[in-house]
This record gives sequence, structure tokens and C-alpha cells, in this order.
Amino acid sequence: MKNNELTDQPRNLSRRGLLLGGAAGLGAAAAIGIDRAVSTSPSSTQPATHGEQTEPFYGTHQAGIATAPQAHATFYGFDLLDDVDREGLRRMMRLLTDDGARLTQGRAALADSEPELAEVPARLTITFGFGPEFVRRADPSAVPPWLKPLPEFTIDRLQPSWSDGDFLIQVAADDPLTVSHASRMLLKDVRTFASLRWTQKGFRRAHGSEKVGLTMRNLFGQLDGTVNPAPGTEEFDRVVWSQDGWLTGGTGLVIRRIDMDLEGWDEIDRPGREQSVGRTMGTGAPLTGGAELDEPDFEAVNEFGFPIIADYAHVRRARSDNPDEVIFRRAYNYEGEQDTATASNAGQVFAAFQADVDKQFVPIQQRLDELDMLNLWTTPVGSSVFAIPPGCSEGGYIGETLLD
Amino acid sequence: MKNNELTDQPRNLSRRGLLLGGAAGLGAAAAIGIDRAVSTSPSSTQPATHGEQTEPFYGTHQAGIATAPQAHATFYGFDLLDDVDREGLRRMMRLLTDDGARLTQGRAALADSEPELAEVPARLTITFGFGPEFVRRADPSAVPPWLKPLPEFTIDRLQPSWSDGDFLIQVAADDPLTVSHASRMLLKDVRTFASLRWTQKGFRRAHGSEKVGLTMRNLFGQLDGTVNPAPGTEEFDRVVWSQDGWLTGGTGLVIRRIDMDLEGWDEIDRPGREQSVGRTMGTGAPLTGGAELDEPDFEAVNEFGFPIIADYAHVRRARSDNPDEVIFRRAYNYEGEQDTATASNAGQVFAAFQADVDKQFVPIQQRLDELDMLNLWTTPVGSSVFAIPPGCSEGGYIGETLLD
Ligand code: HEM
Ligand code: HEM
Repeated sequence: MKNNELTDQPRNLSRRGLLLGGAAGLGAAAAIGIDRAVSTSPSSTQPATHGEQTEPFYGTHQAGIATAPQAHATFYGFDLLDDVDREGLRRMMRLLTDDGARLTQGRAALADSEPELAEVPARLTITFGFGPEFVRRADPSAVPPWLKPLPEFTIDRLQPSWSDGDFLIQVAADDPLTVSHASRMLLKDVRTFASLRWTQKGFRRAHGSEKVGLTMRNLFGQLDGTVNPAPGTEEFDRVVWSQDGWLTGGTGLVIRRIDMDLEGWDEIDRPGREQSVGRTMGTGAPLTGGAELDEPDFEAVNEFGFPIIADYAHVRRARSDNPDEVIFRRAYNYEGEQDTATASNAGQVFAAFQADVDKQFVPIQQRLDELDMLNLWTTPVGSSVFAIPPGCSEGGYIGETLLD
Repeated sequence: MKNNELTDQPRNLSRRGLLLGGAAGLGAAAAIGIDRAVSTSPSSTQPATHGEQTEPFYGTHQAGIATAPQAHATFYGFDLLDDVDREGLRRMMRLLTDDGARLTQGRAALADSEPELAEVPARLTITFGFGPEFVRRADPSAVPPWLKPLPEFTIDRLQPSWSDGDFLIQVAADDPLTVSHASRMLLKDVRTFASLRWTQKGFRRAHGSEKVGLTMRNLFGQLDGTVNPAPGTEEFDRVVWSQDGWLTGGTGLVIRRIDMDLEGWDEIDRPGREQSVGRTMGTGAPLTGGAELDEPDFEAVNEFGFPIIADYAHVRRARSDNPDEVIFRRAYNYEGEQDTATASNAGQVFAAFQADVDKQFVPIQQRLDELDMLNLWTTPVGSSVFAIPPGCSEGGYIGETLLD
């Protein structure tokens, strides 16, 4: 902004209005034009920072799924307003696609009120998901059979305020201010179409605070994510990407908010903790030996003939011989504000991607519901299922395969 | 953990107990010894990560004040339990000092239940503060005159649940999991002495996502912290460190939870925003020209004879000719979970350090209370004052100058 512009400014402002009328006295319309004009990309003369790193927005698939998990992610679940029809959904998705494409590349949103906050993309990804009602309004015949609330499980203590939702936005980046700013811009795009139902904020280790590629630790201290299809492999593509109609190149997402009883976990000694999962706390290796990435030996027994990886161990129960029953987990830790020094309000925003929720996710969750030592300290308090549409190319928009 | 230990483990566990008795069947006492044995410092053969960086715990001053602000900080305010006397306070501070010294150096806490989570210190600092009641119980004659709730201001809308407190812990690090783990260990130390009154989580840009040394941006998009005493300077030492009795080498901390009305701010165009503070949004330069760090010209007028930096501008109101009226600001952004897509729940955990709250902080806040354009969009909803005792050397403990 040039100096002579600055001295001109009071022309546009009534000082009395400023002091007496408050916000209303300031006029507002100029903001968009000015804000867009001052937005700049990070200058290439600056030394490289990880904040300058971007993830591509356009592509066959949406970003934020195969993307190496960023340090921060916030998940927003929305209820569509009653009067929003197919045409309205299209308008909303065009708006969101446009701003998603800008923000993820470190550019200000179309009506960005704080364009400077957009200048640090920090691997920002923005991922959209459609709940059952969204797809129904777009095309009642297009709802995938698995796009519905999960069956009830005996372990569930679901709260409606953490569950379901017609529409999802997942905002993830290595910088918390980036997530905050992008979220605010996207929520503004959505507000005439939908109301916010829930917000779930998650975190993992900071970018660069550990060696790249380490499995994350959750709040129980466990290495969590060891056995997981690896992006870029044939297995990942088969497990994650749908081949089904408008969803081809998209996927299914199950979000479970799972409370972790840190106080109960405190009571358990280290061998007990390791038994409950079937892996060691230190290296995450199977209890039958080796290193983290070595295969567990589920047949091995100890000197008394008991299986070394117990029948109730989480990893035994979570694994299946059926090659259909595989999911891709991309979980985040959460920690709400706690009320007292003695009871935590923490756990995991468990997010699993798979092409077919009924075939892949549900049988695993059913087995864990029947028997899983970890159930003693983990309680699902929220549950949602979304169809994640495929990506799009420049000029297109996310959801076009359903809405066009 | 060696393999032969692993196959031995079922000896210590009753499988029936595990399945039928649940958590209670697992025994617990072994945890501490085992956990401490496996705790290791980051191996020096690993490539350097910023997670390995440590801030010294021992010293003349507590860490977390002159320390370059970390990306994440959580502030915990506590009420002391009724039966905790001077001797109890001493016990609590010895425990906390011990664990603080360990955790900040990347070592597990004394009774650490998840020692692996302690291995990434990420510049962790742990800072303790004493409210009026704490000092009164230690020594009724030792309460600094300014250690009391601030006077009431007309702009205040204080909620008791965000205000006051007998005891404070500030936990700050560049990694959110580090903050979470350290906090949990410290809260366990405190729980027999005090109950949690409030928790305030704050964030700034991630470590390394921007060039080092940039002023942070707050959620209004403003550069916030430009004019601030710089650690290492004579001014900083004079402003921050107390010379008064047991508090010598310590300081005073005011924490104000200030709600920022992001929706109202949205209505204001860019010139209006800049007028309200007296600086530009883009570079943070004074409206009278130059660069961020250049001095504002408070005398300059425009062609109509109006001051370029308005009478109601925040920076004019916040500055004083009186050299006593200077504070050191170390603020964090906060963002609570919001209820609807249209109303934010966000603002600033405003933290200011100064040797004498009455002399330095109060007159500034009084001037801002009388007139400050920013008041239109900012509302204090919480307020606390703490005495921050000096640091200690190895073998000593934080608070010893008051409690010994
Ligand atoms: C807060 C709740 C949970 C915690 C703390 C947890 C923890 C773990 C841990 C520590 C492992 C071993 C390391 C690894 O391979 O990642 C694991 C494996 C696994 N978990 Fe979970 N888990 C939770 C919930 C779930 C849920 C809800 C599901 C699916 C319904 C699930 C499915 C799996 C699968 C498929 C594996 C890999 C099993 C294999 O080795 O093949 N987990 N989990
Ligand atoms: C959410 C509330 C607040 C916001 C958004 C805010 C924002 C700002 C901004 C943008 C600046 C200019 C850049 C800088 O020097 O940092 C500033 C300066 C300043 N603010 Fe605030 N501020 C807030 C509350 C306060 C409070 C409560 C105090 C003290 C009572 C305070 C004291 C100061 C001081 C001393 C300066 C430097 C003035 C100078 O140039 O000498 N601010 N603030």
C-alpha cells in the first residue's frame, strides 16, 4: 500500500461514525477488492520454510487422503439447510472448490478478509465429504448402499452432537494458524447452505519434530498406524479408491470419535498394556519378536501353551484372513478442554478410508465389538460416514460427477 | 525389552483376570520402574530434528518468558485444596520442579506412564506462577501489593470460570503432543494439592513454517508484537525482572482471555482496520510510513489537519511517555470449538510479563479502557494475575525463595 493512499484514507471514513456508530460506520464493500490486490505468494528470495510447501489441489483423487498426514487437522460436520436443493449443492461445491484451490496453494480465498494469513500453505489440504442426505438431495438413486450410519455396536456410547452430518470438510496442514484461517474462509462459503453440527480438532507430532516416516504415537503412548496400506502401492489403491459410478476415484470415510480413558490406562502396567494390543510399547514390535514392521506370529505360544499374542489382543482381533477386510487409517489425537485435574477429555479422531464401508470397515468393527482388550479403555462417542467424491481438474469442481 | 522377557509376560498376568476383571485384574505397581528403565534420550546418530531442541530448565529466571515463543502453549489455572499448607506447597513445588527439569530435557517424568512421549522435548518450557492465595498460605507478609485481581474495567465481561486462580502452570513447546504429554504428567503431580479451574490452549505459527523472528499474526490478521522489549536487552531486564525480595529474578504475569469478534471484524474494510490500530495490515508499518520496525510519527497530520494515527488508534493509546508503563507481551491465539458456522469462539490468550503489574500494566489497560478503537471487536472474558517466582539451580526448586 502506498503512502499517498494512506493519507487519503480518512476521506473514506467518518470519524464520528467510527467513534459513535462503531463497526457500522466503517463501510465494508471495499474489502474484497483490496484484500485480493495485496495477496502475494511467498517470495522466492526467502529461504525455504516448510510453510511454503504445497500439496496439489487438482487431481484424480482429492488431497488429504493419500497425503502424508499433516500435524493438524480439523473435521467439520454440517447439516444442510432445508431449502438447499441440487442446484444449491452445486453452487456451494463450486464456491468451495474455488477457495480450496486457492488456499491450498497459498493464495487468498476469493473474499479473503485476512489475505496475509493465507500466505503459509504448510501442505494444506481441504477434503470434502457427502453424507447420505447430501447425495439423496443430489440424486436419490445415487446413494451407495453403505452410505448410512454404522450398525449399532455394544461398545458405542454415541452422542448425536458428535455423530452423523450431511456434509464434511476436513482441513489439514502442518501449521495451526493455516488450518484456522482456511477453515474460517470455508465456513463462510458454507454458511448460507448448511449449519455446523460438530467440530473435531486433531493433532499429531509437529512437522519436523521427528524423523520423517515414523509411525505416530497416540495418547496411550502406542505406535498407532504400523499395519496400514501404504499410499502409492497397489494395495492402497485397491483398498481406498472406489470404482463405483460417480464415486469412482473417490472413497468412503468413517470418522469415529473415540474417548480414551487415560486415567484407567494409568492403572495398567507395561506388560498389561502390551498384552492388550499384542505389540510392545517401546518399539511397536509384535510381542512375538522382531522390529516394528515385522509380521506378528499369531500361532506362537509360550511355555504354558498360551498364545503369545492373546486372543483378546487388538491386533489379532483387527486382522482378518479375508482380503476385503482392510482399511486405511489416518487418525488424529484429540484433547478437549478438561474440567478437573483428574479426568481427561481426550482420545482419537479415528478416520478410516475404504472404498466400501460395509464390506471393509464394518466386519472389523464387529470383531472388535465382540472381543478386544482395548475396549476396556476406549469408548466410541461419535460416529459418521461420508462418501468422499473424486478429485477434479482445473475448471471443474469437487462433486461434479454427482451434481452435473 | 528383550525377547525372553516378552514370552515370560503371561506369568504376571491372570488371563481370567484380564478378561473378566478388566482393568483391575492387571496389577499396576510395576509400571513406574519399567517405564523409567526404557526411557532413552534421542540417539545422537539420528539426524537433527527440531523436536530434539531443548531449553534449559535451571537458571536465574524461569524459562518460558524470555524464551522465543513456541508454537503451542497451554495455560492451566488451579484452585488450591483447602488443607494444603506451606509444607504442602513446598512438597508440590519440589515434585513439579523435578518433573519439569526432566520433561524439558526430553526425559520421562518420575512416574511417567508414557515415557516414549517424553522423547521429543521440542523446546518445552514449564513455567509456574503463584496467585494471591498461594503466597498468602506460604507467607501472608510476602504478597506483593499488585498480586490481586486487576481493577474492574468498563470493557470487561469477565467469566469467573476463565479468571483468577491460586496457581498457574504454563506449558509451551513446538510440538502439540509434547505439550499434551507434559501437561498430563504435571497435572498428576498437582492433583492431590489443587483442582483445575481453567485451561487455555493457544497457538502461533508452527515451528519453521515461517522465517525465524517474524512477528506473529493474530486471528485478525494483524502483526502483533512489533513494539515489545527484546529479550537480552537492558530494557527487557528492567521491564520484566523483579528486584523485590523473594520475587527477585521473577516477574508478574497478567493473563487476559480476550474474545475477538471475527464476524464484526469481517464488516470492516481494510482502511478501517488499519485506522483502528494505527498500522497497516500488510507489513505492520505505522500509518505514517516506513517499515514495520520504524517509529510511528504521532504528530503527523493529513491534508485536513487530522492526525494520521488517530486519537482512538490502539498503538497511540497503548503507548505512554512514562518509561514505567512498558510491558512484555507474549500472546497466543486461541480457538475454541464453535457452535455454529456463523459465530466464532476465538481470540487471544493475552499474556503480559512485567515486574510490577500496578505500575506497568494497569495504567495501559486503563487508557485502553477509556478509548481504543479495537475495543469494538475485542472483549476481555477472563483475567488472572500471578507472581512468577525466579528460577532455581539443580538441587533447588521453583518457589524456594518464598517457601524455604
Ligand atoms: C482409540 C481407539 C484405538 C486405538 C488406541 C487403537 C490402537 C491400535 C494400535 C496400537 C495398533 C497396533 C499398531 C498398528 O498396526 O497400528 C492398532 C492396529 C489396528 N487397529 Fe486399532 N486402535 C483403535 C481403534 C481401532 C478401530 C475402531 C479400528 C477399526 C474398526 C481399528 C483397526 C485397527 C487395524 C485394522 C489394525 C491393524 C491390525 C493388523 O495388524 O493387521 N482400530 N490399533
Ligand atoms: C485481542 C486484543 C488485542 C489485540 C488484537 C491487539 C493488537 C495489537 C496490535 C496489532 C498492535 C500493533 C503491533 C505491535 O506493536 O504489537 C498492538 C500493540 C500494542 N498493544 Fe495490543 N492488542 C490487544 C490487546 C492489548 C492489551 C490488553 C494491551 C495491554 C493492556 C495491549 C498493549 C499493547 C501495547 C503496549 C502495544 C505497543 C504499543 C506501542 O507501539 O508502543 N494490547 N496491539
